[in-house]
Amino acid sequence: MDVLLLAVELIGTFAFAVSGALLAARKGFDVVGSVLLSSMAGLGGGVARDVLIGYGPPLALQNPIYLAPVLLAVVLVLTGLLHETRLRRTLLVFDAVGLSLFCLTGTVIAWEAGLTELACVLLGITTAVGGGAMRDVVANETPQIFNPRGVYAVPAMLGAVLAVTALSLELSLLWAGPGIALVVFTLRMISLRLGWRVPLAGRTFRDSGADSARGAGSETE
Amino acid sequence: MDVLLLAVELIGTFAFAVSGALLAARKGFDVVGSVLLSSMAGLGGGVARDVLIGYGPPLALQNPIYLAPVLLAVVLVLTGLLHETRLRRTLLVFDAVGLSLFCLTGTVIAWEAGLTELACVLLGITTAVGGGAMRDVVANETPQIFNPRGVYAVPAMLGAVLAVTALSLELSLLWAGPGIALVVFTLRMISLRLGWRVPLAGRTFRDSGADSARGAGSETE
Amino acid sequence: MDVLLLAVELIGTFAFAVSGALLAARKGFDVVGSVLLSSMAGLGGGVARDVLIGYGPPLALQNPIYLAPVLLAVVLVLTGLLHETRLRRTLLVFDAVGLSLFCLTGTVIAWEAGLTELACVLLGITTAVGGGAMRDVVANETPQIFNPRGVYAVPAMLGAVLAVTALSLELSLLWAGPGIALVVFTLRMISLRLGWRVPLAGRTFRDSGADSARGAGSETE
Repeated sequence: MDVLLLAVELIGTFAFAVSGALLAARKGFDVVGSVLLSSMAGLGGGVARDVLIGYGPPLALQNPIYLAPVLLAVVLVLTGLLHETRLRRTLLVFDAVGLSLFCLTGTVIAWEAGLTELACVLLGITTAVGGGAMRDVVANETPQIFNPRGVYAVPAMLGAVLAVTALSLELSLLWAGPGIALVVFTLRMISLRLGWRVPLAGRTFRDSGADSARGAGSETE
Repeated sequence: MDVLLLAVELIGTFAFAVSGALLAARKGFDVVGSVLLSSMAGLGGGVARDVLIGYGPPLALQNPIYLAPVLLAVVLVLTGLLHETRLRRTLLVFDAVGLSLFCLTGTVIAWEAGLTELACVLLGITTAVGGGAMRDVVANETPQIFNPRGVYAVPAMLGAVLAVTALSLELSLLWAGPGIALVVFTLRMISLRLGWRVPLAGRTFRDSGADSARGAGSETE
Repeated sequence: MDVLLLAVELIGTFAFAVSGALLAARKGFDVVGSVLLSSMAGLGGGVARDVLIGYGPPLALQNPIYLAPVLLAVVLVLTGLLHETRLRRTLLVFDAVGLSLFCLTGTVIAWEAGLTELACVLLGITTAVGGGAMRDVVANETPQIFNPRGVYAVPAMLGAVLAVTALSLELSLLWAGPGIALVVFTLRMISLRLGWRVPLAGRTFRDSGADSARGAGSETE
C-alpha cells in the first residue's frame, strides 16, 4: 500500500510538474526556471502538507525519487513532446490529473499522521491546490483557483471528503481510490467544458463599474 | 484566559476573513475563491506563526472552530450584508481590527511557547501582517503593508512590544489587552484618515524619473 | 567554526537585505516596507530552510543578531550611502553576494542537521534563491530566478554540490568555502555581463505569437 501511495504521489507530481513546465514555456522562462516552477507545482502542495503536519523534513526532501517526475516533465516539455495544443487545454488537463490524485494522497498522508477528519480534509485540499497556487503566484499570475470559469477547489474538497469517508469506513483505497480520483477529474474537466460558474463572491460598487475593475490597489488609496 | 485568547483569535480571524471576502468580491472571484482568500487572510498569519514556532499542526488545523468565522464572513459578504461602501473604507476597517487583535494573540501565543521577548514581538508582527500579506500576494496585489499611505506595521509592532511588556510585568492582559488593541486600531485608522506617511525607503535614480516607475523587471535587464 | 558560519550567514543576510531595501526604494515603499522587504530578502531563505529541516523556531528568530544586518542595510539605503548607480548593477551585485554565501551556509546547516546529500543540495539552493524569490513575489515582481538573462539557480546549485562534496571529503570549509563562494559569485556576474542565456523551457504556440505573450491568464479562458 505504501508503494502504491508513493506511485500515486509520483504520478500526481508528474502531472503538476508538466503544468509548471508548460507555464514556464508560455512565460518565456529558461530551462532552470522551468525546473524551479515545475518543482514548485509538483512538490509544493506536498511540502506545504508536510510542513503543516509538522514532522521533520518533507517527504520530497527525504526521498530523491520525487525529483524524477519533475525532471521528466521538464524534458518532455523542452523537447516538445508535450506542448500546448491549438485547443490550449494541455496545461489544464495535467493540472486536473494532479488535482484529482493529490486530494487523495494528501488526505491519506494526513490520516496516517493521526490528524482529525476535518484536518485531513483541509490538508487534502491544501495538497491538491497548493502546488498549483504556488506555481501561479511565483510566476506572477492570478492563481487558477480564483479563475471564475469552471470549478477547482470544489472537486478537490469532494475528493478529500470521499477519501476520509472511505478511510473511516475502512474501505480499501485500492478500490475506492481510483473511483474517487476519476470523479474529481471528471467533475473538473466537465466544469471547464461547460463553463460552470460558481456564484460570485459578492457585489462590487454600484456607483462605478469601471472603478471596481481596477482592483484593490487603486481602491485603497 | 485560554477561552478568552481563543475568542480574540476568532474575532481577529473574522475581521481578516471579511477583508479577504471583500477583496474576492472586488476582484470578481467566485464563492470558492472567496472561501480560500478569506481562509488565507483570516488563518494565514496564525498558521505562519505556528509553523515558525514549530510544534505540530497549526491551531487552526487542530480546532474546527477556526473555520466558523471564515464561513460567516463569506456568507455576510455574499449576501451583501457587508459590502464596500461608497467611502471604500470597509475593507480597511476590518483589516485594522484584525491587525490590532492578531498582534496581541500572536505575541501571547509565542510567549506561552517559551520564546524570547524579541521572538515574541517578531511573531506578533508576523501574525498581524502575515494573513493580509498572503491575501494580497495570492490575489496578485501589492500587499497593503507596502502601501505608503498610512502606517501599518508600526502599530502592529507597537502592539506586540506593549503586549510583551505587559507579559513581562505580569500585568493582566484581561485589562491591558483591550487597551493595547484600541491603541493599535486607533493609530492605524488615524494614519489612514490623516494620510500619514512614513519617509520613503530611499532615493531612486536621478537621471530618469520615468524609468524608475517601470519597476525592477526592466531595471535589471 | 560555528562563529564563522554565523558570520557568513550575517554577511549574506546583509547582502540580500540591501537588495531588498534597494527594491523597496525603487518601488516607492516607505521605511517600514523597506524593513519588511529587507527582512524577507535577507532572512526568508534561511527561515524556509529551517522550517523545512523542521526543528523548532528558525535561527533568525532565536538569535536577535540576525536583525542587525537587516537594519544596517535599510539605514544605508535610506541615507543614500548605498544607491542604484547609473549602471543599475548595485542590486544585482548584492543579490549575487547573498546567493554565493547562502548556497554555502544552507548546505552546511542542512548537513549538520543530518540530512542526506541530495536534501543538503536542495536546501542549499532553497536558502540561496528563497529570500530573493520571496522579495520579488511580495513586491509583486516576476522573480529574478525566472529572468532569462544570466544564470541564477545554476551557480547556486553548483555551489551547493561543491559544498556537499567538500563536506563528504571532510575538507576544511575554512579553505574550500571562500573558493566556492568566489566561483558562484563570479559565474553569476559573468553571466550577467555576457548575457548568457539558458535555453528556453519549450516552444510556445506556433500559430499566434502575439497571443502567447499575453500569459496564462488569458490562455486558460
